[in-house]
Amino acid sequence: MKWLQSSDTDFETRLSSLLADRSAVETSVSTPVRDIIAAIRAQGDTALCDYTARFDRLAITPETIRISEAEIAQEADKVDAELMEALTLAATRIESFHRAQMPSDLSYTDDAGLTLGMRWTSLDAVGLYVPGGKAAYPSSVLMNALPARVAGVERIAMCVPCPDGVLNPLVLAAARVCGVSEIYRIGGAQAVAALAYGTATIPPVDRIVGPGNAYVAEAKRQVFGHVGIDSIAGPSEVVIVADNRNEPRFVALDLLAQAEHDELAQAVLITDDAAFAQTVVEALGNELQTLPRAAIAGKSWADHGAVVIVRDWAEAAQIANRFASEHLEVMLDDPEGFATQIRHAGAMFLGRNCPEAVGDYVGGPNHVLPTSRTARFASGLSVFDFLKRTTSIAADANGLRAVGPAGVALARAEGLGAHALSLSARLDALGWNQG
Amino acid sequence: MKWLQSSDTDFETRLSSLLADRSAVETSVSTPVRDIIAAIRAQGDTALCDYTARFDRLAITPETIRISEAEIAQEADKVDAELMEALTLAATRIESFHRAQMPSDLSYTDDAGLTLGMRWTSLDAVGLYVPGGKAAYPSSVLMNALPARVAGVERIAMCVPCPDGVLNPLVLAAARVCGVSEIYRIGGAQAVAALAYGTATIPPVDRIVGPGNAYVAEAKRQVFGHVGIDSIAGPSEVVIVADNRNEPRFVALDLLAQAEHDELAQAVLITDDAAFAQTVVEALGNELQTLPRAAIAGKSWADHGAVVIVRDWAEAAQIANRFASEHLEVMLDDPEGFATQIRHAGAMFLGRNCPEAVGDYVGGPNHVLPTSRTARFASGLSVFDFLKRTTSIAADANGLRAVGPAGVALARAEGLGAHALSLSARLDALGWNQG
Repeated sequence: MKWLQSSDTDFETRLSSLLADRSAVETSVSTPVRDIIAAIRAQGDTALCDYTARFDRLAITPETIRISEAEIAQEADKVDAELMEALTLAATRIESFHRAQMPSDLSYTDDAGLTLGMRWTSLDAVGLYVPGGKAAYPSSVLMNALPARVAGVERIAMCVPCPDGVLNPLVLAAARVCGVSEIYRIGGAQAVAALAYGTATIPPVDRIVGPGNAYVAEAKRQVFGHVGIDSIAGPSEVVIVADNRNEPRFVALDLLAQAEHDELAQAVLITDDAAFAQTVVEALGNELQTLPRAAIAGKSWADHGAVVIVRDWAEAAQIANRFASEHLEVMLDDPEGFATQIRHAGAMFLGRNCPEAVGDYVGGPNHVLPTSRTARFASGLSVFDFLKRTTSIAADANGLRAVGPAGVALARAEGLGAHALSLSARLDALGWNQG
Repeated sequence: MKWLQSSDTDFETRLSSLLADRSAVETSVSTPVRDIIAAIRAQGDTALCDYTARFDRLAITPETIRISEAEIAQEADKVDAELMEALTLAATRIESFHRAQMPSDLSYTDDAGLTLGMRWTSLDAVGLYVPGGKAAYPSSVLMNALPARVAGVERIAMCVPCPDGVLNPLVLAAARVCGVSEIYRIGGAQAVAALAYGTATIPPVDRIVGPGNAYVAEAKRQVFGHVGIDSIAGPSEVVIVADNRNEPRFVALDLLAQAEHDELAQAVLITDDAAFAQTVVEALGNELQTLPRAAIAGKSWADHGAVVIVRDWAEAAQIANRFASEHLEVMLDDPEGFATQIRHAGAMFLGRNCPEAVGDYVGGPNHVLPTSRTARFASGLSVFDFLKRTTSIAADANGLRAVGPAGVALARAEGLGAHALSLSARLDALGWNQG
């Protein structure tokens, strides 16, 4: 854990180095991924089954790539009632927030007599990648599938690797709760390739979302352009801005909740009281004694954790903006007031009783958020990821008379003769006097 | 030019092959681009000046990388008054449409007592790439810079290569009209790298937009993740849906306006009347006799042009959706009615007097649009490219009581102990009875 104080002379250097810690990770799997994608494009289902046998130790045929409705129902029924209730509450809240997000179309006729419009339509088909094994989080299924469903996507195709054939009841139950159309027991770069290019069994999709390992991320990067992708997520991170009126243990647990995700995760406390920060650090050490994922959380805190002592909350806001962190908790008397000074953050959690875990599950806003300081230019997953815009211009003779001549002048200046003619020939027919 | 008829038995095969024509182009310049980016990151301005001397035959120093205000004013003053007026009309209309596009923030308190929000903020700094030489279009400067300006971006840094030191008055005038903050006389992958990573002279930006050659496109692809980028544009394309009540020459000119961009451009006519299509094809041949860019337009039409004869307009709409084309002209009696059946298109041009060239210059909506069938999942450039969203959740004790227990259940099911504790410790302090 690093300890920085804004009044120190080397503060700027050390803060810059801390910020650089979150730069994007380079990948070294591009060649094997390229080979896998080429094989899926050339041999389709055959290659898909081969890779699944090899990487997941699972023998499948084109007939069994898809998990049947009966299997899904059988697995989902294993989930206990309390958990099903929690899943359903989460789904309801997430759906409701994303419904509020839906944008409006635009249409107006301007002074020149042109009618201008912008219409939102949903994608036809979306692929949802769900990691296998320990990283298979039902909450991620909800967070990725529900915005697509709310946006109006008709077909949501999910891929989840099932090493040794083991199905994950909670993931299948979550998929069922949010109306996923079809589920395939495949993973890795081969699943991404199958979703992007299609096989005899799996029709291609228009966009692929969802987290995955380095192979999945690189495969998404390589199919980008042919289909859309979501952003490539880096390790998770939180910045917590807290005053000394908070219970230190709560702050410590919130830092650990981030740190337990991944040894590369980053948890940062910004406060104006060094003594308070010290009590938080001690409380964090205590919790590590009993935390189930103490090894991961401890290493994350040791390697990437940081405490930043600031002079005042205005300075805290400035530094938080420079972190542009995925998650920002504001545990102050007036969290809303502080939030107005924040320009760059994936998601904010306001108040002493609003740990980031609220947003991971049951808050409503999406938990798929921009990492590695990309909140400077990127946003969390939303209905906007599953919608696109078509603009329109309608012009009649009068509209063309009003704007056409300027278009002719610009087209000629750019040396595009047919552009100019497509306008001037019509203007001539309407009796244009070029002067 | 290909001629397809929907009543033919091999129609589906031939249409699929026509659609496959627009698949994304592979790039083979990734190694040299990787080297250039590494050099700029390591040596900054020195490498930037070296590459500019080598590729653009232009000797610059860190002091002269930026084009001075005096130079810009001097060049811009060379543009004649009528053209300045056309540029200004275009800028006013583009700005006004993009202003109408600006989205609203969201904030509401729900039944559980949580206050949920979503706030739009602009990016801090944007890089705008403008190609040099013949492809330097002032209209592109307007279309890329104005949405950023309207979104509220404070700093717009433009790069334009100036081979042999030649400045383009119209491009500089356009940059001035739309308030570009700074202009650098550099291009290629080295300009993209400088914008993404910064040098001593050029502070880094958060997102890079604008068209460029294969090197520029590959450089944008490689810096993606560290900064945001716009989509990599392919060759331009238009689909024109026209009945036989149109003047054939106008339809022919609209097809040619697309074809003259690039030998790889694609112009497609969809109509229900083969005889009418024949007159359009003849008119197109006539225009090619005198068109300045006849060589390019003729090759584009020969290699990629197509006529599709349909049974009716419903079928035309279906086929237009499968093209998901960058531009869609609808020259029918009821273009608005037809438009309601369109799900996938970058931009629509409605009416017999609304050629696509209106939208290239003076319509208002953006002319930077998704190509190569990516309108299935992508949209034209807009204020949304220069904004990002921060969501927020505010919870007090009652809000936490309402949703916290479900969060605890899900966190435990996912094996994330600190997540569960960050919620349950607070709930315990509030007197939670876990039952």
